[in-house]
Amino acid sequence: MEQKTTLVQKLEYVKGILAIAEKYDHAVNVLSYDQETICPPDAMEEQGEVWAFLNNQSYKLIKDQAFIEAAEYLYEHRGELGEFDRVMAEQLHRNYVQTRNITPELQHEFMLTFNRAFVNWSKAREAGEYSLFAPSLKEVADTNRRMIELRGEDAAGKTAYDTLLDDYERGMTSEVLDEAFGACKERLIPLLEKIRRSPRKIRTDFLTRPVEEEQQVKMAKWLLKQMRFNFDRGAFTTSEHPFTANMGRFDTRVTTHYYPDRFLSSMYSIIHEGGHALFDQNQLQANFDHFIIGGKTLGMHESVSRFYENRIGRSEAFAQFVYPKVCECFPEAMEGVSQEDFYLALNAVQPSLIRTEADEFTYTFHIIIRYEIEKALFAGEIKVEDIPALWNRKYQEYLGVCPASDRDGVLQDVHWTSGFGYFPTYAIGNFYNAMYFNRMKQEVAVEESIREGNFEPVNSWMIGHVFAKADRLSPKDWIRDITGREFTPKDFLDYLEEKYSGIYGL
Amino acid sequence: MEQKTTLVQKLEYVKGILAIAEKYDHAVNVLSYDQETICPPDAMEEQGEVWAFLNNQSYKLIKDQAFIEAAEYLYEHRGELGEFDRVMAEQLHRNYVQTRNITPELQHEFMLTFNRAFVNWSKAREAGEYSLFAPSLKEVADTNRRMIELRGEDAAGKTAYDTLLDDYERGMTSEVLDEAFGACKERLIPLLEKIRRSPRKIRTDFLTRPVEEEQQVKMAKWLLKQMRFNFDRGAFTTSEHPFTANMGRFDTRVTTHYYPDRFLSSMYSIIHEGGHALFDQNQLQANFDHFIIGGKTLGMHESVSRFYENRIGRSEAFAQFVYPKVCECFPEAMEGVSQEDFYLALNAVQPSLIRTEADEFTYTFHIIIRYEIEKALFAGEIKVEDIPALWNRKYQEYLGVCPASDRDGVLQDVHWTSGFGYFPTYAIGNFYNAMYFNRMKQEVAVEESIREGNFEPVNSWMIGHVFAKADRLSPKDWIRDITGREFTPKDFLDYLEEKYSGIYGL
Repeated sequence: MEQKTTLVQKLEYVKGILAIAEKYDHAVNVLSYDQETICPPDAMEEQGEVWAFLNNQSYKLIKDQAFIEAAEYLYEHRGELGEFDRVMAEQLHRNYVQTRNITPELQHEFMLTFNRAFVNWSKAREAGEYSLFAPSLKEVADTNRRMIELRGEDAAGKTAYDTLLDDYERGMTSEVLDEAFGACKERLIPLLEKIRRSPRKIRTDFLTRPVEEEQQVKMAKWLLKQMRFNFDRGAFTTSEHPFTANMGRFDTRVTTHYYPDRFLSSMYSIIHEGGHALFDQNQLQANFDHFIIGGKTLGMHESVSRFYENRIGRSEAFAQFVYPKVCECFPEAMEGVSQEDFYLALNAVQPSLIRTEADEFTYTFHIIIRYEIEKALFAGEIKVEDIPALWNRKYQEYLGVCPASDRDGVLQDVHWTSGFGYFPTYAIGNFYNAMYFNRMKQEVAVEESIREGNFEPVNSWMIGHVFAKADRLSPKDWIRDITGREFTPKDFLDYLEEKYSGIYGL
Repeated sequence: MEQKTTLVQKLEYVKGILAIAEKYDHAVNVLSYDQETICPPDAMEEQGEVWAFLNNQSYKLIKDQAFIEAAEYLYEHRGELGEFDRVMAEQLHRNYVQTRNITPELQHEFMLTFNRAFVNWSKAREAGEYSLFAPSLKEVADTNRRMIELRGEDAAGKTAYDTLLDDYERGMTSEVLDEAFGACKERLIPLLEKIRRSPRKIRTDFLTRPVEEEQQVKMAKWLLKQMRFNFDRGAFTTSEHPFTANMGRFDTRVTTHYYPDRFLSSMYSIIHEGGHALFDQNQLQANFDHFIIGGKTLGMHESVSRFYENRIGRSEAFAQFVYPKVCECFPEAMEGVSQEDFYLALNAVQPSLIRTEADEFTYTFHIIIRYEIEKALFAGEIKVEDIPALWNRKYQEYLGVCPASDRDGVLQDVHWTSGFGYFPTYAIGNFYNAMYFNRMKQEVAVEESIREGNFEPVNSWMIGHVFAKADRLSPKDWIRDITGREFTPKDFLDYLEEKYSGIYGL
């Protein structure tokens, strides 16, 4: 009886602190969003300091000894807790282990390292000079290693890189990824060769015809509305790099960027971000009440955004649905472009240098290249200085292209300024959604409803099967819960093979 | 020697706390800005709670006993401090006296009252039902009275209303305002009658011709640029009600609103807000370092915004300067409109119901009406229920117009949801700027430079004379410092008489 009382008290205490931390986090989110969208250049540094201050206030709350003791007590007694409280206790324990010896001061130091790396990356990228970034990149890798060392025995028995992979996608290992990416290479390299040799040429000339921003904004808004983005609980604006971010429980914001000579860019980035947003807007309120919204992995999130972007957005049914609207919004650009032309152009395979502009087929190679480099770096097989040459060699090998400058090569992505192990989640997301799409098709008339522009059946299935338990299950259990099967890249590879064989008449 | 050390230590301690409070305030400012511009409807309440939480964190810091003791120590020893530190100590003391017995809990309670009043005002306004707002209005007045009572002997010897006036405009009393507004009525009522009877009619038909938002945005941006608004230290966006707000030291943001059938509205609101922004962007950095930026009164701030809006913006020289640009941006609206037509339309006198849309001449009446009602309410001469009838009677008496609904009458302004005593500062601002404009003209070739679109000489004079000491001097000392004279409405009334006699050929 007494223990029961203690448990209830500790639960209340822990949730009380987390509710305060949530307020700080909310402000931190709004400040970040503001910096990405509106904050003027001269105010960036000052606002960054405010951001860091509030972030630290939140961090201090959960690093407080009394809080840790209460949270650890809950974890030890997790068997006596209800499901949501148990998940909360597990997440808190996981976070505790990851940051056990990282004091608020150390955390601040690491943050400065990442900030410095970001600044140097920006400079290096602008100058196309890898050497300006290399020392920072080494610092980031060292910081990642140090953060893992600080975990002591909690990180024992695993390589540093596997620990990083696990941080981003719980349970993921390089062994699993080696196998998955091995299968990708085995099947996709010969397929790409066939596509290359295919006599069927897809016209893409109209994709670079100029379209005014105003028209693109109209289209982006329309797309979000079709997808059933909730504008009462979200906002839609512009930023240099498209993103989705949650401010609080009822506020999911998406942004995009407009290029006058690439109208597909804003269309497909908004479908991608819209997918992230649907995931966030359709969370159970209970997840918020139990502070477990951090349970979703990046792989899960990318699976959803890429599901909407590629599996839905580049399907024949979707192309048929949006074609009249695209013609209406971009009449000059679509002059003389048939629905078939439009669909094929959405799926034209064009090996290229820039990941974010890659087509669905070649995208996986961009991830494999980054994965292989990260892994080699953490295994000590290569040094930071070796990366550009290796990068270029791999692009040549897998995609037959080679960047003229590091700006379009190793310096293109911001991710390495804040750590390693993130990139694989993009590909993992594709593997997940191919698995659950095969299941969805058995229960939902996907093509028919999308052809009519009706997202309701698809969204409902996603909410019920993909979103509902994402915060409570490990990725392994989650994909098994949705599909009844174990993680595999097979469905994704089958899908690519079938789709692109059709498109290129192989 | 020992005392000197103590003084230095206390100074450091106080500034250390204020630097933390500044961080909270910065976040609070960004949250407010976000709520006014982008926050989606369903997230308003949650974000409002985060706002209140951080605001309270800041308030707690300066209500801390150790802080108060140190700050009061500085105030007692202010004679030994440098000028900026002395001003800081005086401001802290003033704030301490005003909030001496207002605990963070009480402050929170008051904030809830004001929030409730805002919600009820919004509802009442939408329904055009004063009765929905009246109970809240009474609550706000009672809260104002209670806040003053809590000051105890610090508020003794003054009426409650004079205390409120003093809170908004240090040193201002109803005695001074009675005299000033009396002079206004004496001279402006007969003048308005003459304008009414003038056979000279000003054409304003073109002002309601439709202009697309995009064109208005272009114009607003151009105007800010001409005024030398610093875009590296500021931003420019859209909101329902135009405003200017500072996030931090290097971040002043202005907003406006666009009406398709009133292109002058966005033009002149942006010049007004641009004036506020110039004041804020050209503050001494030392003011920030000593945390004394709160020294500027509302009257000072409005004097600057109205200086740019009216004294510059509605002058013949400015009309000549912007005319070609207005024709270029709004070609359809300006079809067949001469430069003379445009200038006269900027200054057409049209007694109307809505303060924010009033012309420069009749504007003062809108303020006098609100002042007389506020004063009567706090003197106990009228009750909250009597306000609408009195409002309508006064509009009829002074301006010859009477609202059909309270929506266009007593419910039009938001200000009374957060207290009384604010409105007079708008008129006080006009009196100030008329005084310093007469001084400026002796030293600066205003007309010549504005006619060429060169704001530099005017801005420089404003920075050197009007902005420089605003945070350090009381309004009385400030206007004497700029003009060598005592506060008077005479310059403003002379200006109106001369200008409008010319325009209407009186």
